[in-house]
Amino acid sequence: MYFDTVIRNGTLLTVDERMSIIEKGWIGIQAGIIRAVEASLPDMAPPDARLTIDAAGGIVMPGLVNTHTHLPMSLFRGLADDLPLMDWLNDHIFPAEARFINPDTVRWGSLLACAEMMLSGTTCCCGGYFHEDAVARAVAETGLRAVLAQGVIDFPAPGVQDPSQNIAHAREYARRWTGRRPLISPSIFCHAPYTCGDGTLKAAKAAADDRGLVFQVHVAETRFEREQSIKEKGLSPVAHLDRLGILDQRTLLAHCVWVDDADIAAISRQGCAVAHCPESNMKLASGIAPVTRMRSAGVTVSLGTDGCASNNNLDLFGEMGTAAKLHKVATGDPTALNAASVLKMATIDGARAIGLADCIGSLETGKQADIIVVETRTPHLTPLYHPESHIVYAADGADVRHVLVAGSPVVRDRHLLTIDVGEVIDRVNDIARDIRSSLNGDAK
Amino acid sequence: MYFDTVIRNGTLLTVDERMSIIEKGWIGIQAGIIRAVEASLPDMAPPDARLTIDAAGGIVMPGLVNTHTHLPMSLFRGLADDLPLMDWLNDHIFPAEARFINPDTVRWGSLLACAEMMLSGTTCCCGGYFHEDAVARAVAETGLRAVLAQGVIDFPAPGVQDPSQNIAHAREYARRWTGRRPLISPSIFCHAPYTCGDGTLKAAKAAADDRGLVFQVHVAETRFEREQSIKEKGLSPVAHLDRLGILDQRTLLAHCVWVDDADIAAISRQGCAVAHCPESNMKLASGIAPVTRMRSAGVTVSLGTDGCASNNNLDLFGEMGTAAKLHKVATGDPTALNAASVLKMATIDGARAIGLADCIGSLETGKQADIIVVETRTPHLTPLYHPESHIVYAADGADVRHVLVAGSPVVRDRHLLTIDVGEVIDRVNDIARDIRSSLNGDAK
Repeated sequence: MYFDTVIRNGTLLTVDERMSIIEKGWIGIQAGIIRAVEASLPDMAPPDARLTIDAAGGIVMPGLVNTHTHLPMSLFRGLADDLPLMDWLNDHIFPAEARFINPDTVRWGSLLACAEMMLSGTTCCCGGYFHEDAVARAVAETGLRAVLAQGVIDFPAPGVQDPSQNIAHAREYARRWTGRRPLISPSIFCHAPYTCGDGTLKAAKAAADDRGLVFQVHVAETRFEREQSIKEKGLSPVAHLDRLGILDQRTLLAHCVWVDDADIAAISRQGCAVAHCPESNMKLASGIAPVTRMRSAGVTVSLGTDGCASNNNLDLFGEMGTAAKLHKVATGDPTALNAASVLKMATIDGARAIGLADCIGSLETGKQADIIVVETRTPHLTPLYHPESHIVYAADGADVRHVLVAGSPVVRDRHLLTIDVGEVIDRVNDIARDIRSSLNGDAK
Repeated sequence: MYFDTVIRNGTLLTVDERMSIIEKGWIGIQAGIIRAVEASLPDMAPPDARLTIDAAGGIVMPGLVNTHTHLPMSLFRGLADDLPLMDWLNDHIFPAEARFINPDTVRWGSLLACAEMMLSGTTCCCGGYFHEDAVARAVAETGLRAVLAQGVIDFPAPGVQDPSQNIAHAREYARRWTGRRPLISPSIFCHAPYTCGDGTLKAAKAAADDRGLVFQVHVAETRFEREQSIKEKGLSPVAHLDRLGILDQRTLLAHCVWVDDADIAAISRQGCAVAHCPESNMKLASGIAPVTRMRSAGVTVSLGTDGCASNNNLDLFGEMGTAAKLHKVATGDPTALNAASVLKMATIDGARAIGLADCIGSLETGKQADIIVVETRTPHLTPLYHPESHIVYAADGADVRHVLVAGSPVVRDRHLLTIDVGEVIDRVNDIARDIRSSLNGDAK
């Protein structure tokens, strides 16, 4: 028996170079690697395997790649909405973080976020936060693939009370997690050019470069940030990072809402990728990133959900639908950002953005078997003319039936196999009870 | 035993005047009417009833009201996306309608749309199409509450080949369905001021008025429509309808994307309601309706999905999240259209828009028991600080567990009780196979 696992009886949305769709096909997996992507022949059953997954006529596609999130912020989901950004941060998020973020709460929040992502078809995420060692240990339990960054900021932060230690802390985290687990890649995340000085930005980038890691930074998220940067430094946030030598192919820029043509040219020239977070940018009224212009300039634009406190879920299906529709109305062009483009942003372009395009992001032989099966025999996915249209415009995370990461089933029939979801929910509810009573106490 | 049905053990999101939330409560229903909305007492179980529904800690709220859709267009879901409006209509939708819309296909498409809506928490819909007699018969089978309009247009249409008969046809439909079924209200729908002459608009409105019915019309959907109206008639589309005397409290205006302050003042003065369809307007790149300005002017703005061919699903949860986020980014104000406002738009304001605010749209004694139970013990709805935030920003249609219309359970544990969903899916797939092969044939 050559294959460990065969997925049969599905429509294969490969997201390969030609966006091939195989209407009735099967996939063979051996030792975590895709070894066959084949059309079913009328008179020949797919080969036997130790495990056969029946896609039941559904859509089989690469797992989604969420390139910007903050896992433990699931603890603050819906804690405070519909507020101006600074009130939201200063009156709600920062106080809650200062009081309730510790290695234990971070662990439960990360497990919750992973459960949500895996159950909605995300097989790889990229992001950063504080106490990242505890985050990485939690994520490793879940079987999710992840690029996980220690956060760096020039203020006292959870786990790094003395900002002068932030680079050393990040270096130590990166050392500890390099090569430790096959699915976890360490990374370093500078919060933003307005919260990190030039020295910090350069040192953090150098620390990432020393190990060939992805360097992440929020940039040009709000109009205020752009205007302040121009006023104080005479440069846009992107131009400022460019001058510092921070921009290159291993730098991932989150947001890039307020970028002009010169910024886009710099991003393109240096080969940076952008993590576009449409729902977070809309909910915080930050603005609409010029995604179609960035893509036209050759920039790899991927999709992220951002943290749960500003979204308020981690469902990349919703993010795909929103992205496709938002950029049509923003440009006045109904042909902008078609379904196939958005599907690529959520898969292969996401993989490219985090340096994993050789490993994941499409159903091709030789790649890691990060695969999801979407059930389509439901009213809202009937009839089915074009599978990529359904994925982007009609499906949501709850339609994901099976999920494999590196060939291992992590979700079967909508049940998460790797961790006890009920226990995670109970523990997060305990933490939330404390947060709620503490904040209610403040209000008195 | 006083109650037929009791729903217990839920967080009650009443959407009453004060937006009361009862953290642990129960609802008593008798003969289809809500007779009790009560907080649970620690030492007293809710009363017995013939049927007790355990909300299991979830959110109990009024069913959603979708005020603009075209049910049979579910047959064309995803048939053609990412196209300019006129190509989409002329090359895909109109030819498919001309060839494949008949009483039989309309029946199966309507059943499919109802199944989708009920399974995603919609308990009442309003819309119109052609062969509406077949639509109404299909909807009546499903147990959904609906305002269903015969379409009127000054061109040959499915079922009304001779446009001179369009008013007579609509009148006859309205006569046949007045008082016929308690959950179905007939209505008349003029397609648009650019496809219906002044005489048709006035005659259709008069036909609706004769029976006190809701009159519906698409208006000011695109910039082109507005500019053409001003050029040809010297009036905006809304001003044109106002001059014809079409605007009053029983007129429901779909879209209103391209309306200026004078239009908004007219809509407000005449007491019309607006059906806002954010996802359809985004996907077709029509524009962003000035919802916050219309609401400030006192206009009742409700939510609609539009038909499946331009959305591509009928999930009002998605529409709520999109509306809340879209108008924040459109106005640059993160406090715009907060969760409570959007929740009202999808419930009580929807009821108001179609003249049913005395009957449905909130959990209040004396109202019809159109109620949904949303499961919250899931990763993406954990933790729960504010139920209205979860409903608008984090939940989706798949979280709806139970649905009652007029006190009758129509969805239990996510299973539709009233029609055979498998049969509907099979029949729609048969119809779609014909559509696909016919269109493929054209392409050769």
